[in-house]
Parts: sequence; structure tokens; C-alpha cells
Amino acid sequence: MRLVVIGGVAAGLSAASRARRLDPHLDIVVLEKGSTISYSACGLPHLIAGIVPHPENLQVYTPQFFRTQRRIDVRTNCEVVAIRHSSRQVVLQSGEKLAYDRLIIATGSRPKKPELDIEPGAPVFYLHTLDDAIKINDYLASHSPKKAVVLGAGYIGLELAEALRRRGLAVTVLESSADVLHRNEPLLTHIVQEHLKKFGIELLLNTRAQCVHRNGVDQIPADMVVVATGITPNVELAQEAGVRLGQSGAIAVDEFMQTNLHGVYAAGDCAEAYHRILARPVHLPLGTTANKMGRVAGANAAGRRERFHGVVGTAVVKICDLEVGFTGLSVAQTRSAGFRPVAVTIEANTRPKYYWPSKLTVQLIADRTTAKLLGATIIGEEAVLARLNTIAAALFHQMTVEEFSFLDLGYNPPVSPVWDPVLIAAQQLLHEL
Amino acid sequence: MRLVVIGGVAAGLSAASRARRLDPHLDIVVLEKGSTISYSACGLPHLIAGIVPHPENLQVYTPQFFRTQRRIDVRTNCEVVAIRHSSRQVVLQSGEKLAYDRLIIATGSRPKKPELDIEPGAPVFYLHTLDDAIKINDYLASHSPKKAVVLGAGYIGLELAEALRRRGLAVTVLESSADVLHRNEPLLTHIVQEHLKKFGIELLLNTRAQCVHRNGVDQIPADMVVVATGITPNVELAQEAGVRLGQSGAIAVDEFMQTNLHGVYAAGDCAEAYHRILARPVHLPLGTTANKMGRVAGANAAGRRERFHGVVGTAVVKICDLEVGFTGLSVAQTRSAGFRPVAVTIEANTRPKYYWPSKLTVQLIADRTTAKLLGATIIGEEAVLARLNTIAAALFHQMTVEEFSFLDLGYNPPVSPVWDPVLIAAQQLLHEL
Repeated sequence: MRLVVIGGVAAGLSAASRARRLDPHLDIVVLEKGSTISYSACGLPHLIAGIVPHPENLQVYTPQFFRTQRRIDVRTNCEVVAIRHSSRQVVLQSGEKLAYDRLIIATGSRPKKPELDIEPGAPVFYLHTLDDAIKINDYLASHSPKKAVVLGAGYIGLELAEALRRRGLAVTVLESSADVLHRNEPLLTHIVQEHLKKFGIELLLNTRAQCVHRNGVDQIPADMVVVATGITPNVELAQEAGVRLGQSGAIAVDEFMQTNLHGVYAAGDCAEAYHRILARPVHLPLGTTANKMGRVAGANAAGRRERFHGVVGTAVVKICDLEVGFTGLSVAQTRSAGFRPVAVTIEANTRPKYYWPSKLTVQLIADRTTAKLLGATIIGEEAVLARLNTIAAALFHQMTVEEFSFLDLGYNPPVSPVWDPVLIAAQQLLHEL
Repeated sequence: MRLVVIGGVAAGLSAASRARRLDPHLDIVVLEKGSTISYSACGLPHLIAGIVPHPENLQVYTPQFFRTQRRIDVRTNCEVVAIRHSSRQVVLQSGEKLAYDRLIIATGSRPKKPELDIEPGAPVFYLHTLDDAIKINDYLASHSPKKAVVLGAGYIGLELAEALRRRGLAVTVLESSADVLHRNEPLLTHIVQEHLKKFGIELLLNTRAQCVHRNGVDQIPADMVVVATGITPNVELAQEAGVRLGQSGAIAVDEFMQTNLHGVYAAGDCAEAYHRILARPVHLPLGTTANKMGRVAGANAAGRRERFHGVVGTAVVKICDLEVGFTGLSVAQTRSAGFRPVAVTIEANTRPKYYWPSKLTVQLIADRTTAKLLGATIIGEEAVLARLNTIAAALFHQMTVEEFSFLDLGYNPPVSPVWDPVLIAAQQLLHEL
């Protein structure tokens, strides 16, 4: 009985490891087209910032580790060019064919190519793989660029803008939409933009780049340009094999991470995830989700029957010492989804006044019809995670605002105030409902 | 229509303020027997440590504030000596009688007197009120004691031990039970004891003091002794008026914070709180709970019909730079309550390995019969609150371990690891169930 996993980063390796743990007798092969496996993609901006000193620091495990410790045959530089499901085979670029009983597709994603002209020889970079980060670092070392333009104000774009600023470059970020972090949330956008300004990073919203040339982007001079305009799932291989895609364009899976083909699972950035609040599948490619989906796919490929419980849309990012977290839906997203949103925004202390607090901004959103929580945004210089994860836990079962306002949270002056900021927000939201 | 509130600290003032907000026409009188109102009792150890410089820093509002800003008649140094419910009157120590339509009893608690001999003239202190803290500070300034013994290893005892150690004293803590923090949790006790040792604080467990004399406690020499052996609810006034007490000895209330006497509510340290996991009332006197109960009592006294949703037993304390949090039940408590506990303890990183993490110890407990979460202990030098409050939120509806293991929590290298420690613990607990 052989399990073949296509892709050797987060989802693929989580799947393979889980399957091994549950079935010691399974023959498990992981096929990774790149030269490195098991590295932290979310650590890449920090490698460029210099906070992470060496690329090796980001590598969690080597292929040798998987071979010897987990008896998983991990093959790098090994691209799958076709899946022949009728004969249960994958075809490698070398022409070799490999039979499978179960298949997990964890082909990940790639940077979206923006619609713009790129002049040949223009110093354009992407940041998606470890190799991409090494290329950027090499260029910084060899060319000492003074000015960078980053296209896109998503996580990667903003983290990269900070990293380059920390390396001493002047940085301008161009974002084609009106908002940062794909969140469609003016409050968040405003706070982040003002904060970036303090760190000497210029953020231009509603600005679509037309042309990248050797000396910059459109009229903006630059010695290097990084394109971070989102990612797109790698679904072509699956699609050609007859795997069905969902409305988002990523691979459609059921709660067991199974595709429409029997015995074929998908997990990670290439697959859709069920959104508990929207009650439909979405494409929300994140490392945490990829790992969880991978575990479920691996378990089911090994004969279990485990469910993936879906996501609520939680994310946190630290930009220039400002922690920004959100979970659930933004006001705009709740409206598109047919909810009747009521939102409050408060500013509150992270600790009692006498214990040198800092400020947290908390936006809490509920549905007027059901009085249930729908989403939140938390922004501050510290202690955002405690509030974010509390709300993420509450959103799992869509707690009502009233229930939430009675959560029994930890209080002690060195750690938190007697009324936690999220409870203050909830009380205020109760008034508005 | 007059609302009389007995007690002007957390619960009493929360109640009065909420009632005012909901009913602008209510006549509201708060009677406080002490000289100060509205101060943070939880800040007292930090005043002694010198972290909070002045007693005034701990005072949130003055009686004047309540009179002018909230039209609440707050009277200090005003002790109620009797409640005559048949005639709807309270009797003040001055002999004055004050009529009420609604009454809220928020008489708080007082230090439990330990069973020991105290030699007259022995330098014995308590830490319950602002005045107590000022007395200790005055003694430290005037007598420059070199050695202190603290009786009791609850929150106050341990925070006080740290405070006195920071002021340069040698400190020994005597605890009559086998455990710290009333938690009956050997793991917690062991970690705290070892940590205290590093800070030069000696903790002697299973050690019951017999006699406090002028030069110390039993055979242990000391220049000052602080008794912190727990608190007891102030219920005598209520009891004499015919208010029923619960099994815990605190005032019994229903979910509306109403006592057995019509129109008479109780809230805060003097009252019981419903424990959601034990499914019965307990006496768990904490500032957060007092405030929440007070708000509910105030709302209902003002004509609303609001429910207090109960507690899950969350607490956090920072002792010598170690954050210690717990929520729900300990293993021993689950056993006494008739559950079949399964527990795991893991050590995990607060951030990815390449982003200078520190260690968190997470103990997670579930019930074998229902697979639902029952409690947790989190210990570490940072970021305990994020994990504690996430679990506290999950315990509100007693999430299953499987559901919990799928929580969509925030991940970003500067803030947290891709598998949050609580999720790692949950996965391990799933294996054990």
C-alpha cells in the first residue's frame, strides 16, 4: 500500500508524518519539485530583515531526517508532470512512473503574476520560496540598492517593506486596492498607513503599477522592485487529472480533505478550506491551515475518518513593531455575505493605568439579527495575540455577544486589566445591538 | 425609588454605575465603611514592591467623581450595622436609618484569621485593604526589617513574598497545604517552588505555623510576619437579616444575583458564583468576577432581567517574572467532582525556533467520558495570557478536545509558532483519550 504526496512543504509533510504515525506499514513517498523541503515560508521576510541570520535557520527538517527517523522517502528536485488516476500513477519529469494507492496533492501556490509590463533586465523579485529570499539577499549584498518599490500591501508586501527598510532602503509600497492586508477595513488601513509613515515607509493606495522598468516603477524611481500581489493556487496538475476545482479556483475538497477522485486528497495552499462563518469554502492560504489540512488528509489517507473543522479567518502580522490581528469577517465582508453587521471600535489599556499600559484598538463586529459575533480586528504594540485568539475561539461556535461579554478571562495587573479590552468592546457592542 | 448599595469597592461601584446608566431617575446611595473607595486591591502587592509609586495611583475614582459625574451618593466611613428587610431599611452605625426599595449587598471579604497564637506586640500584618498596604510600607520605612515570614502561598502570599524580596528582605513562605495557589496541582507547585528558590524566596510546604512571636514564627526568626491565609466572605450582616448562605458559606444568589429576599441582591467577594464546569455555585472571590456580578446586580436592581453566566475558574498571577495561569479544574478537582480526567503536560515554544522563543508549559485536562475540556495550567515567562484566555473561551461552552485542536489561531513568527502550544497539547491529549 503506497501513499504518494506531491509537495514537501507544510501540508505535504504534515500529511506524510501523520500517515506514518497512524500506519507504520504504509509505503510513503513525498515528491518535491524544489531543492529544499520543510522550511518556514513565513520566516522569509525575517531572513531578509536580518533577524533570522541564515537560510538554514528556517529549515525545520532535512530529507535525511524524514528518511531515517520517519521512514518517509522524500525526493527533492522531483517534479510530477502528470497524474494518471485511471492507472493510479504519477509521472515524473524524468519519465519515471510511480504507482500510488492513495494520493495527496499538496502542490501549494505561486505568486500571482500582476498585469503589468516588465522591461527585460528590470530588477524584479518575488518572495515565495527560500530561493527567492536568497536571491533578494544576494542582490542587497552585491548591488547595495538605495530605494525599493514593493507592489502589494498584503502580509508579504508589508513584511517585506519593513525588512527592506530595516536594511536601510527607502521603501514605497504600491497597493492597487483601497486597503491593506486584503481586509477591506478602512480603520485597519488607516492605522497601518500612519504607522508605516513613522517608519519611513510610504504606502500609496489605489495605485496600480503599469510598468516596471530598469530604473523603477512608472514615475517612481527604484533600484529594486518586489512583486507581492498575492498568490494563486497550483491546481493545473490536479485539474488535468480530472480533479474538480471550487468556485475560488482552488481544489474543492470535502471535510475529509478528499477530492472528487476516490483516494485522492488535497491540502494546503492549493486547496479550499471551509469557512465556518461564511459557511462555504474559501481559498485562504495560510501556514496554520495548511498544516491542519495536511494532518487530516494524512490521517484519512492512512485509513482514518477525520474531519477538518474549517477556519474562521484568523491572521496576525507584526509590521514595524505594530501587531495587527483579525479574525472572522470584516464589516464589508459581513455585508457581502448577507449579514446585518453592527460594529464598535474602542481603545483600551493592555494593563491597569498604574502598571504602564499600552493601547489596544479593538473592533468587534456582530450580526444584528442573531446577536452573534462575526469578526474582530485588534491592533496594538503588544498583547494582540491574547485578544485575537480569545475571539477566534469564541467564533468557532459563533458565541453571542452577550455570552462573550461574560468570558472569565485572566486578570492580574502585570498582565492585563480587570476589564479586558475585548470585554469592554463586547459590552459596548451589546448596547448597539 | 431608591437603590442602596452596601460596599464601595469593585462589585458595589460596578453595580451602582450600571444602575445609574440604565435608570437616570434612580436615587442611588453607596455606603462604604472604609475611608477609601474604588481602589485596585490587586494592585496592593505592587504598591509594596515599589512598582506602583503612590497609594493614589491605585485609586480609580473618588467619591466626588461619583457624586458629580454619576449622581451617585457615595458615603465613606459609613458602616451598616443592620438590614431590616421587613421595613426595607438599613441601620447605620450612627443610628441613622436609610430606606431602600432595592438593596445590593457587596460587603466583600476579610482575611481569614488563621488558627495560631499571636503574641501581643508581634509585628503581624495583613494585606487586604489600601490601609493595610500603607501600614506595611510605613513599617518597612521605619523599621528596615531584614527578614519576613509570609503565612500562606495563595496569590496574595506569593505576590507579597516577591514584593518584600524586591524590597531587599529575606523571605520565607509557610504554606500549611501541599500546594501553592489553592490549586492542588503538584506540577504547578513544583515549578513555582523552584522558581521562587532562584529569587531567594524559601517556600516551605506542609508547614503549619503554630505561634507568631515578637522575633518570628515558631523557630523561624523574622522581623515581620504577614498573614495571607485566605479570605472569608463578609456575610454576617446579610445572615442576620435572613439572607440565605450557600454551601460555601458565601451568600447564595440565583443567576440574576438575587438573594432569597425579594429585591435584595448580592455581588462580589461576599457572594457565591456559579461554576460552569462544576455546575454548582462556588466561592471564588476575584476582582473580575466581582465586577461582572456587580454589573448584573446593578442592572437587575434597575429593573432589567440580566443573567450572570458564571465562571470557569480562570486566574493568572505573575510571580518573580514567571507567569502562571490556570482555568477550569485541576486534576484533583476533576476527580473530586466525579469526572474521569485525562491530562497531558507538554513544553513548547512561544515562537518558532529561529525567532528566539521562550518555553511554555501547558497542562491540558479533559474528561474521558465526554472528551470535553475540563481545565488547563499554563506556565512561562511570557505570552501565558494568550493561551490561558483561549482555553477559558473554549471552556465556556466546554468544547471537546477535538474541536479545540482545530481552533484557527493567529500565527506569525514574531508573535507565535505555527502550531500553538495549546494545539500541540490538544493533539497529544486526543491520543490519550
